[in-house]
Amino acid sequence: MTSTVLADPLDPTAIQASVDAVLNRFLTAKARPHAGAHQRYMAALLQDFLVGGKRIRPLLCVTGFHAAGGQANTTEVIQLAASLELFQAFVLIHDDVMDASDTRRGRPSVHRVLDQEFRRMRTDCDDRTAQRFGTAGAILLGDLALTWSDELLHAAAVHGTRRTAVLDHLDRMRTEVMIGQYLDLRATGDKHTSVEDTLTVIRYKTAKYTVERPLQLGAALAGADTPVLEACSAIGIPLGEAFQLRDDLLGVFGDPAQTGKSCLDDLREGKSTTLLALALADADPAQAARLRALVGDPRLDLEGAEEVRDIFTATGARATVEQMITDRYRQALVALDTAPFTPAAAQALSALARQVVRRTS
Amino acid sequence: MTSTVLADPLDPTAIQASVDAVLNRFLTAKARPHAGAHQRYMAALLQDFLVGGKRIRPLLCVTGFHAAGGQANTTEVIQLAASLELFQAFVLIHDDVMDASDTRRGRPSVHRVLDQEFRRMRTDCDDRTAQRFGTAGAILLGDLALTWSDELLHAAAVHGTRRTAVLDHLDRMRTEVMIGQYLDLRATGDKHTSVEDTLTVIRYKTAKYTVERPLQLGAALAGADTPVLEACSAIGIPLGEAFQLRDDLLGVFGDPAQTGKSCLDDLREGKSTTLLALALADADPAQAARLRALVGDPRLDLEGAEEVRDIFTATGARATVEQMITDRYRQALVALDTAPFTPAAAQALSALARQVVRRTS
Repeated sequence: MTSTVLADPLDPTAIQASVDAVLNRFLTAKARPHAGAHQRYMAALLQDFLVGGKRIRPLLCVTGFHAAGGQANTTEVIQLAASLELFQAFVLIHDDVMDASDTRRGRPSVHRVLDQEFRRMRTDCDDRTAQRFGTAGAILLGDLALTWSDELLHAAAVHGTRRTAVLDHLDRMRTEVMIGQYLDLRATGDKHTSVEDTLTVIRYKTAKYTVERPLQLGAALAGADTPVLEACSAIGIPLGEAFQLRDDLLGVFGDPAQTGKSCLDDLREGKSTTLLALALADADPAQAARLRALVGDPRLDLEGAEEVRDIFTATGARATVEQMITDRYRQALVALDTAPFTPAAAQALSALARQVVRRTS
Repeated sequence: MTSTVLADPLDPTAIQASVDAVLNRFLTAKARPHAGAHQRYMAALLQDFLVGGKRIRPLLCVTGFHAAGGQANTTEVIQLAASLELFQAFVLIHDDVMDASDTRRGRPSVHRVLDQEFRRMRTDCDDRTAQRFGTAGAILLGDLALTWSDELLHAAAVHGTRRTAVLDHLDRMRTEVMIGQYLDLRATGDKHTSVEDTLTVIRYKTAKYTVERPLQLGAALAGADTPVLEACSAIGIPLGEAFQLRDDLLGVFGDPAQTGKSCLDDLREGKSTTLLALALADADPAQAARLRALVGDPRLDLEGAEEVRDIFTATGARATVEQMITDRYRQALVALDTAPFTPAAAQALSALARQVVRRTS
């Protein structure tokens, strides 16, 4: 009797490699010579953009697939996972345009790259024209990423009730993240947002989009029943909230060399985070006045950011957010403990959960 | 024997009414009370935006369906046609953001509506913040329109090879229009674009997107074979080019009361149209200098626009574009004459073609 050692289908590195292979094959085909110079340029730009992503959603999608009894990593589950990563590229590219963020993943954001490309191409152009080209081109590259994420999914051979279930979750996810972004936009710069309101934004913009739906999409592909799908929510919502709360902390207290983002962007933009709402609620009048003056100031400098961080710490807001992350992480683990998942998937999800809340980038 | 009078399935008014009914039902469901205030607001904004569209793509889609032997107007073909209209809403909303156009269909464009909404909501805001909210919100509403156009299509019960054929044409169409928009963007403000280059932009941005693909999508849904799909291209490309050339003329010479768009937008933006390329090619040095000074000037006034129009007429560019429209219209009719289409669809398409090239709005 020969024994075959099978690769662990839940190994994160192997999943990331499979997803990246699908993404590279797809985008290389989009950049083929007869597609024309401009499509090739856009496809290459998107390929560059995808380098360095954490592939959180693909990992959760494949884990959800196994949680619901999916067996080997089929072409279909990897295509679905890869399509989520292309969708995420769309979200980030448009997000950077909307927030006017100049960096992403330690490199210039897409609208900045296109701005520079235009200046090389049209050496006599003025700043306004180059900036407008950058913005418009990034809107289009985001649109392409969204439509290509769909195209990648169209290629997956999923039929019947499983297809209906997958598309249903996908449709919900896409609307939720867009409405979540709109909520975020409305709250930005509003210094009277309640802690409760910031948690509503987080739920839509991140918790459902980043964790609950990717788990459910994978599970739906494996033909999950209602208890499995509900367990994905019970774990996904608190874990996703913890993910965003960690993101908010990293956006202000993180090391830009590790996060790849400036620690000024969120503050200059006046992002209405739970951290800020908590600090404003517990600040004394002098601290509150400083916060209102500094947060949302597009000219905020490193010294000003340091002052904001000190107030976040002094008011106890930072510690409260850390505690909220811990609470939600525990809540997710409790839900995971009773989830009707396969043991291997439950174990993999537990490891992913730890990574999501403890990350430094 | 009783005789039943059946409604003509190719009657444009009836098709538009069916498409509008599907769109209204879909968006009303999106605006249902438990969707939350913000989704309701966005769905209502999209519903408003759709009022007054010409429904050219849905009409062509349904005509293509009948051309390939489709019988009654099934739920599926109307859903497909309606989904093209939602996709077009996405294209226009993002286009207005990219071009910074303030009006669309005689009303403020979406980013202007949202800019005003923000000023009502946050009375102490500055201009820059309101404008950025308008832009970001319009990007999101466009994203929603794109994703909802997909969701509407997901609801259509299309399976097997017909589904594959429809999705294949849809995927091509979406990439083509985005790459076409990118080409347009690169050419904008470039006063050295050749007539040939402007026609390449037109082919991608409009001819394929507005005519060829909608015809093919309808035809594919009816199970069209290759000769039918090729006939859609042979008719669609010249007709679509004529459509865009007419659009370019209307953008400059049209009556804003009829077009619903300012006759300054294209000129201020420095849109690289065939009309402009022809005028620059045939202008004497004094005319060329005036064109270069006026076109692309964001402060161009009505008097300046009048001067540009005079040069377009004096150089013969306007007459040449009219002739190009006539040539392409004839070419489409010749292709239609030998197309393997059902006679009723051929007749309906001939009427649509006339309308497309002779329109004043």
